Amino acid sequence: MTKSNPGNYFEDFNPGMEIIHATPLTVSAGDISLYRALTGSRHALYSAETFAAANGFSALPVDPLLAFHVVFGKTVPDISLNAVANLGYADGKFLKAVYPGDTLKAVSEVLGVKENSNGKTGVVWVRTRGENQRGETVLSYVRWVMVHKKDAASPAPDVSAPDLPDAVASSDLIAPDYTNWDDALAGSEWRYGDYEIGEKIDHVDGMTVEEAEHQTATRLYQNTAKVHFDAHAQKESRFGKRLIYGGVVISIARALSFNGLESAAQMLAINAGTHTGPLFAGDTIYAWSEVLDKAELSSKTGALRLRLVAAKDHPCSDFPLRGKDGKYHPDVLLDFDYWAAIPI
Amino acid sequence: MTKSNPGNYFEDFNPGMEIIHATPLTVSAGDISLYRALTGSRHALYSAETFAAANGFSALPVDPLLAFHVVFGKTVPDISLNAVANLGYADGKFLKAVYPGDTLKAVSEVLGVKENSNGKTGVVWVRTRGENQRGETVLSYVRWVMVHKKDAASPAPDVSAPDLPDAVASSDLIAPDYTNWDDALAGSEWRYGDYEIGEKIDHVDGMTVEEAEHQTATRLYQNTAKVHFDAHAQKESRFGKRLIYGGVVISIARALSFNGLESAAQMLAINAGTHTGPLFAGDTIYAWSEVLDKAELSSKTGALRLRLVAAKDHPCSDFPLRGKDGKYHPDVLLDFDYWAAIPI
Amino acid sequence: MTKSNPGNYFEDFNPGMEIIHATPLTVSAGDISLYRALTGSRHALYSAETFAAANGFSALPVDPLLAFHVVFGKTVPDISLNAVANLGYADGKFLKAVYPGDTLKAVSEVLGVKENSNGKTGVVWVRTRGENQRGETVLSYVRWVMVHKKDAASPAPDVSAPDLPDAVASSDLIAPDYTNWDDALAGSEWRYGDYEIGEKIDHVDGMTVEEAEHQTATRLYQNTAKVHFDAHAQKESRFGKRLIYGGVVISIARALSFNGLESAAQMLAINAGTHTGPLFAGDTIYAWSEVLDKAELSSKTGALRLRLVAAKDHPCSDFPLRGKDGKYHPDVLLDFDYWAAIPI
Repeated sequence: MTKSNPGNYFEDFNPGMEIIHATPLTVSAGDISLYRALTGSRHALYSAETFAAANGFSALPVDPLLAFHVVFGKTVPDISLNAVANLGYADGKFLKAVYPGDTLKAVSEVLGVKENSNGKTGVVWVRTRGENQRGETVLSYVRWVMVHKKDAASPAPDVSAPDLPDAVASSDLIAPDYTNWDDALAGSEWRYGDYEIGEKIDHVDGMTVEEAEHQTATRLYQNTAKVHFDAHAQKESRFGKRLIYGGVVISIARALSFNGLESAAQMLAINAGTHTGPLFAGDTIYAWSEVLDKAELSSKTGALRLRLVAAKDHPCSDFPLRGKDGKYHPDVLLDFDYWAAIPI
Repeated sequence: MTKSNPGNYFEDFNPGMEIIHATPLTVSAGDISLYRALTGSRHALYSAETFAAANGFSALPVDPLLAFHVVFGKTVPDISLNAVANLGYADGKFLKAVYPGDTLKAVSEVLGVKENSNGKTGVVWVRTRGENQRGETVLSYVRWVMVHKKDAASPAPDVSAPDLPDAVASSDLIAPDYTNWDDALAGSEWRYGDYEIGEKIDHVDGMTVEEAEHQTATRLYQNTAKVHFDAHAQKESRFGKRLIYGGVVISIARALSFNGLESAAQMLAINAGTHTGPLFAGDTIYAWSEVLDKAELSSKTGALRLRLVAAKDHPCSDFPLRGKDGKYHPDVLLDFDYWAAIPI
Repeated sequence: MTKSNPGNYFEDFNPGMEIIHATPLTVSAGDISLYRALTGSRHALYSAETFAAANGFSALPVDPLLAFHVVFGKTVPDISLNAVANLGYADGKFLKAVYPGDTLKAVSEVLGVKENSNGKTGVVWVRTRGENQRGETVLSYVRWVMVHKKDAASPAPDVSAPDLPDAVASSDLIAPDYTNWDDALAGSEWRYGDYEIGEKIDHVDGMTVEEAEHQTATRLYQNTAKVHFDAHAQKESRFGKRLIYGGVVISIARALSFNGLESAAQMLAINAGTHTGPLFAGDTIYAWSEVLDKAELSSKTGALRLRLVAAKDHPCSDFPLRGKDGKYHPDVLLDFDYWAAIPI
């Protein structure tokens, strides 16, 4: 019998089952440098120890998205090796800061399963949490994927889809008091009170992604999904080439959003996220944001609920999203809904 | 009104004005690794803690050019977002070593302005200094850029161009005593006394630059000038493609110069620098140097004033620089004038 | 006379001669991150400090292959600048763990020389050892290279080829007791007893290598062999393009071998290695392994002697190696023989 990992099929997932994922990772200053060099991240809170220490952190923290990608990456061999599609994210919460030297481990619980009517695939919901070396949960999120059945003849399990919130409640958001926020160093005078619900921001800049860049980023996260790395096998695929990991799109779009959202540095929660189209090497990512909601967390710190939209080869001054038919614009790559903290 | 950064125009710059640039950066061992991996840097002084500690440093320092690029990068959104061209550097001094854990902040002062006769653009001189977390200036340099006017009808300001030295005086150079220099570990038996004014050195090796490499390096420095990153927009530009950041050329040419200048490891000052032509991905950088001047700084440490010339797709055994018409050879990319310390 | 390094020719190597190589390197957490991001390495022992500390290490160690490439890279300017070919490796031993903060220095001793019958080239055998800052040898290996003579007329030296073992004896292998090995975190339930001599494992996954990736990796190791970096000069070479450093192939094949050899994380010795064909950017690496031998080192730790074969654009379910004529299959890149520790 083969010793290489066959991955899990739809029949292998049972509600309540827990999976401890392989290869914990000790996050380091090297990861912070690479994340910056691969995404263009510029938030002072994740760039300068002095700035972080003045605003409630004990050291220079790791960007929450870097921690998210690392935890996500560990789940791939167990959850999505035989996946047809990554369908969505919900109820993602960043609960504790991650610092260099922390070791992240990923554990998933199967929340529910639902066979598709074709009898060949099914949907699996899992909650994944990232734990540090002290066993503290640093982040937690739900995702659901469509997975192949091993055998179309196997009987359909009871349907058990979880109830998921449309958005994380603002009362569940955890952020420090930004007691010494420096607007000049943060790069903007705009604070909580300057953003209005419904406001749209074109982030203007574009970032072209090369094969070497997305492969390097995806390996940094130890995400091994073969569609991102194997050009030889991908020649026979639907697109004929390597697909870029959706997390690369999220992080670059988020880094582009610095231009207009400079002080909304700290991601607190992921409410929802859909990868609406594929990105390939050579494509250029543009992004825009919309303020969906606002909440005061303390006298010093507020939160903006933001929609982050990424589009390819399409500058976003026209805020592309959906057509009149309700379908996503073909240039749109990502529709991502999150909470970020911002000083008041 | 838009919240994305419109940048400063010629009219926005007034002599005496100070600009604190956004996003201080805590430099780390990760940055040192990436700088080495992206440039090919091989000087023992910036590679081995043991070597640095034996020669006057308290730990493994960051290559002065890495610190320079980081400080330079921070100025881009404020100084050169609307620039037509980066015209030159002068009076650059490396004043204190930068170590992992230091946080660099950039502050610029406008030294002078001069409107061009076309009424559409003007030249702005700024002195930028990089400060560490203790408020100490670690490096300082002048650069001047040609910037668009917002409105051609706005009146020309008084001309106020600064007086700039041709070169930093050797009495202003700061270097430690190299008390335990090891020629074998440094990679050369050649020391101060072995180099003669007028001597030219062909550095022989060539380095081809890929899109992913220059983009990654330029993001490492948090330099966001869009000409380096946005292939979609650059299709409509004069060159039709992304331009490589001039700092990438400086650092690779400097790394190539190891072959022949192994012990001239520590850059002390930048006297002048001109980017004489554009570099694109796929081009190969070659370099040669000329010894312009020499100075003894102590009984242990001397300084060489060096011209570093980079050329593209042109091995430098013929020392390309200018044609008979006095114009730069079309293959020449960089004419860079600096002081470097070398053991006596 | 030129100051750039002319390298050593066959006549320059004399048995017994010792060469201290330039540019010691202080290995850092940044190097660990880059190694992971460039190779896809996923072994828990080299990823998580907690896992390493539970299994006999004092901190998160550096992957032995990273240390090997760093030491190897330093030898290039002295040993193989004028080499025609790298012929083989033997008797490689990993003697002490390397941790971030350790400074590696490379020293080589010439073991033997043998002129080729053509009178134009000769074979040189060297033993290279990597030393840390305490003067402890952390790794040691023999390699032999074919080097150009400076002058075909110079007389042939006495032949002095060393005796080399086919494999490192299992009694010479050094590994800690794996007292707290966690199968789930390691990624596999397979341990020492589950592998049989003669067993072959297809590692399934493929990894495509880009120019930017192999150049960045090779510079990380400070290996400056020009065939890897200079596309302009390589246009005139036999292949017309840049060659990928063989160490890049070894490390990616080894990272791919995680899938099926998850717990054989720690390389203990290199018995032999042959680069049987060139790899170019755009090619995809696949790999398979064969268990050649087994040895119990303690009650907790065993060792597998493994053949690691890499092939290009050729998935390895058919275990490609040699044709009926005994010659290597044209798709095979690497035939590498090593010992790895594995928990019992």
